[in-house]
Order: sequence, then C-alpha cells, then structure tokens
Amino acid sequence: MSTWKDELKEILPDRLLTEPADCERYQRDMVADRTLHRLPEAVVLPQSTEEVRNLMRLASRHRLPVTPRGGGSGLSGGAIAAPGGIVCSLERMDRVLEVDEENLMARLQPGVITRELDRRLEPLGLFFAGYPMSEEICTIGGNVATNAGGGRAVKYGVTAAHVLGLNVVTASGELLELGGKRLKDVTGLNLLPLFVGSEGTLGIITEITLRLTPRPSHRGVLLASFPAVDLATAAVGALRRGGAVGEAAGEVPSAIEYIDGATARGAAAELWRQGGGIVTAIASPAEAILLVEAEAQSEGELAGHLERYSRALTTNGGKLLRGSDAELWKLRKAVPWWVKRQSGQWHSVEDVVVPPAEVGALVRRARTLAAKAQLPVAIFGHAGDGNFHINPMKPPQISEEEWEPILARFLTDLYQLARSLGGTISGEHGIGRKRRRYVADAIPASTLAAMQAVRLAFDPEGILNPGVLLP
Amino acid sequence: MSTWKDELKEILPDRLLTEPADCERYQRDMVADRTLHRLPEAVVLPQSTEEVRNLMRLASRHRLPVTPRGGGSGLSGGAIAAPGGIVCSLERMDRVLEVDEENLMARLQPGVITRELDRRLEPLGLFFAGYPMSEEICTIGGNVATNAGGGRAVKYGVTAAHVLGLNVVTASGELLELGGKRLKDVTGLNLLPLFVGSEGTLGIITEITLRLTPRPSHRGVLLASFPAVDLATAAVGALRRGGAVGEAAGEVPSAIEYIDGATARGAAAELWRQGGGIVTAIASPAEAILLVEAEAQSEGELAGHLERYSRALTTNGGKLLRGSDAELWKLRKAVPWWVKRQSGQWHSVEDVVVPPAEVGALVRRARTLAAKAQLPVAIFGHAGDGNFHINPMKPPQISEEEWEPILARFLTDLYQLARSLGGTISGEHGIGRKRRRYVADAIPASTLAAMQAVRLAFDPEGILNPGVLLP
Repeated sequence: MSTWKDELKEILPDRLLTEPADCERYQRDMVADRTLHRLPEAVVLPQSTEEVRNLMRLASRHRLPVTPRGGGSGLSGGAIAAPGGIVCSLERMDRVLEVDEENLMARLQPGVITRELDRRLEPLGLFFAGYPMSEEICTIGGNVATNAGGGRAVKYGVTAAHVLGLNVVTASGELLELGGKRLKDVTGLNLLPLFVGSEGTLGIITEITLRLTPRPSHRGVLLASFPAVDLATAAVGALRRGGAVGEAAGEVPSAIEYIDGATARGAAAELWRQGGGIVTAIASPAEAILLVEAEAQSEGELAGHLERYSRALTTNGGKLLRGSDAELWKLRKAVPWWVKRQSGQWHSVEDVVVPPAEVGALVRRARTLAAKAQLPVAIFGHAGDGNFHINPMKPPQISEEEWEPILARFLTDLYQLARSLGGTISGEHGIGRKRRRYVADAIPASTLAAMQAVRLAFDPEGILNPGVLLP
Repeated sequence: MSTWKDELKEILPDRLLTEPADCERYQRDMVADRTLHRLPEAVVLPQSTEEVRNLMRLASRHRLPVTPRGGGSGLSGGAIAAPGGIVCSLERMDRVLEVDEENLMARLQPGVITRELDRRLEPLGLFFAGYPMSEEICTIGGNVATNAGGGRAVKYGVTAAHVLGLNVVTASGELLELGGKRLKDVTGLNLLPLFVGSEGTLGIITEITLRLTPRPSHRGVLLASFPAVDLATAAVGALRRGGAVGEAAGEVPSAIEYIDGATARGAAAELWRQGGGIVTAIASPAEAILLVEAEAQSEGELAGHLERYSRALTTNGGKLLRGSDAELWKLRKAVPWWVKRQSGQWHSVEDVVVPPAEVGALVRRARTLAAKAQLPVAIFGHAGDGNFHINPMKPPQISEEEWEPILARFLTDLYQLARSLGGTISGEHGIGRKRRRYVADAIPASTLAAMQAVRLAFDPEGILNPGVLLP
C-alpha cells in the first residue's frame, strides 16, 4: 500500500519538500506564541490550479490535513499545519495574470506580494485600495483568505470590498468559479464573500480578480497630540464625518490612526535617537496621538481637506505637530515593530473592534484592565474603524511560566469588554489557532452552529486547515 | 389531526389572512409575466422576530413552503408563493428601531419603506447610499434579500456594501445574529453576505443594521446626447475614472446612466407633451443619452467636477442638453414606466451585467439580436456598472400565444451574449421564478452544486421559497 507521501512524490515531484530542514521555515507564521508552531509533515509548492486540484484529490483520499499558506505574515497562527498535516504554500503561484486598465481590474495568482502589485499599478495611476500595512511581505491570497484590513480601510473598506472574483479548489478537488469582472451580480447564491476571511477552511484560492482604484494625485498627513484620550476620540468622531464640526459633512480622511502617548514616545525615541522634532513634540503630557491623512486630486482640494481636518483636531484640543508626510507615517508604521522588540514572543498582538463611537470607552477601559492586571500595554490602531491593537506585554517580574495564564485572563477580559461595547474579538487578524478557544464566547451558539454547518458542507471530512477559525 | 391552518390561527390569530379575496394582492409582485402569479394558501403578517420564529417552527413541522415578501416591487417573481405555500409578508415590521448618528448606522425592521428611511435621515444630513430607484415602494428587507442596486451604485456600491448586521430566522426557527455595529469583523465565517441577495431561500430577515453615509451638500446633473452608441460608451470609460482624459483621475460620478435615443424620445414626448426643451434636444439623430451626476461639498468643488465630466462627454462627441437637475432625472426615472405602458405585461424587464469596458459591445450586439428577432427593444440602465436593462417588447403583429417562445429564444441569446462578454444574466433584479431555468447555463456545474449544498445546509427540507433562485 502506497502512503500519501509516495503518491505526492509521484504526482508533484518537483513541488515537494519532505526533509525537516527544508520544512523548518514553514512551521511558523508571525504569531508571537511559539507554542503554536508546528513542523509540517511536508510542504507542497504547486504552480497551477490543476496541481492544487490533484493535491486535494489525493489529500481527500487519504484524509490528509492541508493548510494553505500565503506570505506567512499572519499574526494568529492560521498558516500553521495541523498535527500530521502538510502545508500548501502558494508562493510559486505569484504571477499578475492581467492588469485590465479599461475595467479597472486585475487578475492574479494568490502568491503575488502585495507591494509587487503596487509597483505594477503605480505607473498606471492605479492602486489596490484594500491592502494591509504588511504590504512588503503579505500576499494577495493571504489578504483574501484573512480579509485583511489596511491603514486606509476607513475610506476604502477592507480586502473584501475589492474582491470581484475567485477561483477556489475545494477539499475534494472541485474547482469553484465565483464572480468575475462584474461590479454587480445576483445570479445564484453569493458564495464569494464566504471565502474571503475563511482562513483556508473552505477551499484553496488559486486565482483572484481585484477591483482597482484611481490613485489620488495628492496626499497630505497631519499628526496631532492630545493631553487626554477622550479628546482624541472625540476628534475621531468629527473626522469620520469628514472633519465636520457643526457644518455639512466633507470627504472622509483616507486614514485616522491612533497611537497612545507612551507607545508613540517609545517608538519615536528609537527612530530618532538624537531627539528633537517629533520626539520633543510628543513628550509628556501627550496622552494620545492621531495621524490623519487627506487625499485629493489637486493642491487646492487637498488644502481644503487638510484645513477641515486640522480644525477637527484643534477644536478638540489637539496640538498639530510638524513633520514630512513620510516621517509622520514612519512613526505609525514603526509602532508594531517597536512593541515586538520590547518583549519578543512575550506579548500578544490583539485587534478587537467596537462601534466607532465606542473607541473612547474601549481605550479607557482597556487601560483600566491592563492596570488591574499590572501589564504594560501598547494601544494603537485604526481609530476610524473602531479597530484597535491593544497589545499586552510581559513585564520582567513575571516569569515565562506565569505568563500564559496571566495573558489568557487578560484576553478573556479584553474580549468581554469588546463584546460588551457591541464589538468583537478580531477585526482584521483573524482567529487562526490563537483565538479559537475564545470563539464560542464571541458568537451566539445558533450562529456558530450555522457556521459549522457551512464548513461541513464544503469539507465533510475536515481536511482543510483543521484546528483553525471555528471550535 | 390539526392542519397547519388551524395551528396558525391558534398561534398568530391577528396576523393571518386565509380568505382568497384578502390574499389576492399577494399573488403577484412586479414581474411582467402573469403566468408566474399564484394565489397563496394564506398570508401571515408577523409583527416580531418571535412571531417569525413561531411561524417557521410550525412550517418546518408541516413542511409548509414559506415565501418571505417585502414591498412586492420585485421584477423577477421572487416574492410569489410556491404551490401549496404561504406568503410571510414583513410589511407590519416597519419600524426604524434606531438612527445612531454617532456611529453613522441605523437599525431597522425589514418592512421599512426605503423612502421613509430617507425622510428620517435627510434632516440629519445622512442617507442610505445603497437604495434602489424604486425607493417609494420597495422595503429595506426586500432590498437586502435581493441585493438591490441603485442609480448611485457606481459610486457607493449596491445594497450589500451597506449592510453591517442582520438578524435572520432559519427554516427551523433558529435565530442567527450576523455582524452588528462593526466596520470590520473576521470572527468566524462571514455568513452575512450570503444572506444578501439570497431571495428568502436561506432565512427570513427580521432586523437590519445599515451603514449610513454623510449626505453631499451639492449635487449637479448633466445630460448629453450622442450621435452614436460607441461615442457614448467611450465617454463612460472616461467618466469611470472621474472624467479623466489623459490626466490624473478625479472623483467618480455618483451616477452614469444610459438611455438609448428612441427610448428617451418616447419617454420625453410623453412627459412634455407640448414639446420643446429636452424633447427637441434629443430628437433624431441622437442615438444615445448619458445622464451624469456630480456630488460635492461646496459650489467650487461641484463646478470642478462638472467641468471634468462635461469635458469627458464633449470630447467624445456628446452634446450637452439644458434642463434643471430634477427635469433631467425625471426623464431617466420615467423610462421604465414608459416601457411598461408600451406593452403592458408583454415585455420583459432584463438586467444583464458585463465588465464595464464591454458596454459598447453589449449594446451594439443586443441591438443586432433584437433586429434579428424583429423585436422592439428599450435599452437603458446603469452604464457605469456595466448593468443594462435590455427590455424586449411584443410587437403588435405577434400574437400573445406566439410571444412566450419568441421571448424565451431572445432571452437565451441575450444571456448567452452577456456571458460571452464576461458578464452574467442578472445584476440587480435577481433570478426569482422568472430566470430560474436559465441559471444552469449561467453558472458552472460545480459552482452551482456548491450553492445547492449551502442552501441544503440551511434548509434541508426545502421549505424556504422553493422554486426560486436555484434550479
């Protein structure tokens, strides 16, 4: 009797890694918690839809668990193999098949790096507006599989808003063709969005049709510091209506990002070691920082937007800080890396989401929770969407053995807080392996049962990314 | 043994119509083909989610087919009862539960008339941007169940883009709570969009959370006539990039609507019987008309947009026509009613959709098809979305008996044309009972099987709107 490994070698000889040393880099994604890492039994690197179909037919016969993988930049352990399972890495399916300028659409294979697509689109005056902030490493397929959200989601929406078509290979090796180059489609059930954010549990995405967006010719950034969190979150409310304060609504900013004072100071001090500039400007008593980005098609229009946004910031007690646009974004982008360096694997990257009007309550109460647990916490994120990274870090006096239960208690409280405000436990990073045990508390039982029934309808034997997303 | 009617009388005594005279107005929606009409066995008019749950528990026990119904303004026979089945009309669940200005969201029951919601939102400077053009009669629940598209979808997207939360009662009476007041959510599988456009086959929607949009303070409309279809469709391409002709992209128009010359002339002559004005301006040789709408937050911004859009129209051979904004929209809105009056039930309302760059080919080839079939055809629609109403009408020389097979042949050809251009058979009106027999040709077999598996997972006994949507 041949084993699945023998059969794989036969049908995909040049696409297979079985030596542990070769598989080693596929044992993790970017989840902090190393206990979630696992060496796959093998790694398959298909180069075509047909090869993915052959893989899944084989996996289905052998009930072999398969975990699809994009750039490995996920933060929740969603791209890590199941026990006894393999990884299907889409990295070799990395071609931009077509940039269709007339239709403002692109067709691509899933392994295209997000930034690579942008390099293709920039000279054409176009962009993919749903990109996440990890664009240098994440793949478009991974973005779709996790429904990733980006720094400009407040204006353009998350990945799902830009996916028009998908080819998907199911657990049994069937090919589903969903959507296409169409802006409207009510022919049959709308299965496409079900696959967006399904973390590889319903099928393996092998082709993607994206909507492209005309690239704004002018962008401008404001950074403001606030002496109190509530003032910053009040400004967010005005900015969500385009900076309107008792007047008609305006164009919404393309980014409304929040960083708490201490976190911003830490990241800035590391970025600009000689001090001065931004470092001085965000010194205490700055309790909160907002970054706001305007987009326009002319200098005049940009100036108008920036004036409105400035007013929304200053009338709420914000102090505007000087700096080039690139410098201001640099601060925001440095924050997650600074948090990571503070504590290595001994922190947790969180992304709870609440109704946008509740961001003040969320930040205030999360700080109270962290103080109670005696945990340092970095708070930053996409304030305009109500989506916050509230990242606890292990303090030196807590041992590595003590950390896990302390973290679990804090996360339970944090998730409960998000739910009590009408929110939920993940807005963009997903459930993966990391948050799976918290899902049953986050979703009503009958709704969760419906999700499980749909998963079962697509994958009756549970071979697609088992252990991920649903309990 | 009690019958389902006795039980219904017992549990919902004040919510039940069983007399044929009372049920008469529920035998049709706005589908033209009267052979699709059917008198329901009873009509239930629930007033709460709990009553809908009780109804479905009973229906499930008796395997009683239930067709949910909103405003009855559907054009595809999706709200007509199955043989031996009943209608569940949501018309009494018509309360706006909450307008949440801070979050820019509203919670409503499904029976709210779309225009009623707008009346509530207008004084607050907000609107529901996904509304369809039948706003005076359609309900929000119906819009969601059909994923209706509107005259401003080219800028704001269709209904699905604005639905954040749904409460849904399943075939067995379970309550699903999907989404909520959240702009991002990747907690579990994304079931919500599956229900949008499912035509009542997966569950009955009992509560909706909508995203609201700041209302632009300034709007302006342009109408242009073109001596050839290809010139008009070339202008559409430029307008989709915000009126850019060899320059940086601009803000996309909030409407790009097409009317063919003969149809526009017919509707205009009826609207303005004394002639002059628009009637004269669109006289032959105008072959195609485009209506373009600009939105802005100031007079200056509006003027800028209108100038760009004017240039996109005139550089493609368009001649701008004068008229107030209301007058110009009046012409576009009168067209479907004029078509209806031309032929009563002896026409067919179609809404094929193609990639936007293919609109020229679609219109040209649809005209050829109509000429070959010797059928008068009215062509108009949402050119910016690639979504066209190509409505054949029975000519006087064809008898009513001959009409059905001639129409079926024309539709088969029209749908085949849409598919050959990368499009599909319905962009906004849905499948209903009318297009069901064409679905198997429009969707690949394995994809269709997946849709059927999902439907079965939600409704194993097939009691929710059987005979609709899928073959």
